[in-house]
Amino acid sequence: MDALNLTALLGRFDEHWSPKRIATLNDYEVKLAKVQGEFVWHDHPDTDELFLVISGRLTIQLRDRDVILEPGEVFVVPRGVEHCPKAVEETAILLLEPAGVTNTGAASGPLTAVVESLG
Amino acid sequence: MDALNLTALLGRFDEHWSPKRIATLNDYEVKLAKVQGEFVWHDHPDTDELFLVISGRLTIQLRDRDVILEPGEVFVVPRGVEHCPKAVEETAILLLEPAGVTNTGAASGPLTAVVESLG
Repeated sequence: MDALNLTALLGRFDEHWSPKRIATLNDYEVKLAKVQGEFVWHDHPDTDELFLVISGRLTIQLRDRDVILEPGEVFVVPRGVEHCPKAVEETAILLLEPAGVTNTGAASGPLTAVVESLG
Repeated sequence: MDALNLTALLGRFDEHWSPKRIATLNDYEVKLAKVQGEFVWHDHPDTDELFLVISGRLTIQLRDRDVILEPGEVFVVPRGVEHCPKAVEETAILLLEPAGVTNTGAASGPLTAVVESLG
């Protein structure tokens, strides 16, 4: 493995809401995604989920408030907490969570994505 | 928990080679560190370790090569692989690994740090 340049890796795909695996850390996956618009409300009952915004601006809607992330900002959604990310402009994010977690949690539907590797 | 601004959190400490916990993700810790100079050769026999450079420039010396990380670049040191980070200028990094991992691995010494929380 060599150094992974996040900007260069983001240049290799265009789809929204379809995380790409760039590395593994034990049984966790490091993923990159581009997002725009509103996702779906969902939760992950068995795991926390880390978001790091690389570019753009991400709003993580929670049931009781919104968390707004600018580039260089991190938020961890605790397990079992319903959330719905949205972004007005195209936003690039890094995600970290155990391998096998589905992006839409139990709310499977048209936005449910299979995680492919960029490696 | 609110959004965590990495730059703001880095402004809250000055020590080198002393990672500060800023968040947890299940049983993993997200840590920030400032580093300058050369660390010690060590490995972590039971876990991979993720490095993300935020500012500066980090060289992760491996026994067979150097991996150089610029801002926005990631490297995962696999478990059991000896490594020795170094930085000419002060460099800010984000680290991710399971809670309880000692920064110097089995090579305990003057650089062995107790991880404190910035929270």
